[in-house]
Amino acid sequence: MARFTAIVTVTLKKDILDPAGEATAHTLQQLGYPVAGVRLGRHVALTMDAADEGAALRLSRQMADALLANPIMETYQVQVESLCELE
Amino acid sequence: MARFTAIVTVTLKKDILDPAGEATAHTLQQLGYPVAGVRLGRHVALTMDAADEGAALRLSRQMADALLANPIMETYQVQVESLCELE
Repeated sequence: MARFTAIVTVTLKKDILDPAGEATAHTLQQLGYPVAGVRLGRHVALTMDAADEGAALRLSRQMADALLANPIMETYQVQVESLCELE
Repeated sequence: MARFTAIVTVTLKKDILDPAGEATAHTLQQLGYPVAGVRLGRHVALTMDAADEGAALRLSRQMADALLANPIMETYQVQVESLCELE
């Protein structure tokens, strides 16, 4: 077993409106920044013990499907990195 | 000028408690997933026009300092990628 961190990045699908992102863009523009658009998402860092990187990736995807992302409006990407080997 | 996307990932500093992350971890554990901990953050995708990648990075950091991150409780990372050259 080894300990892994999986970063699940949950973002709205391209066709879904993002009012919070638009409000952020508007505020940045009012502050004088030349930003054309903002899209907001969630960054979820999961720490888990798993047999190997593949198992950690599978588990992370299951957790994203079960709880972390709304499959109707959102999509997600998973990136797994090993933290240390456990004895 | 070229169009860039900058991903600003805003996370809580290590010593700051994350009750929402703990609630997420608790729910995942109740669903049977062997997760040891969860930390939540924000994923901010900025689209902007800038002279080069360095300018886009500087602008993104200024926006993070000015609005996107709370410097007392949060830290952030910026990753810039070029989308296309503008004429």
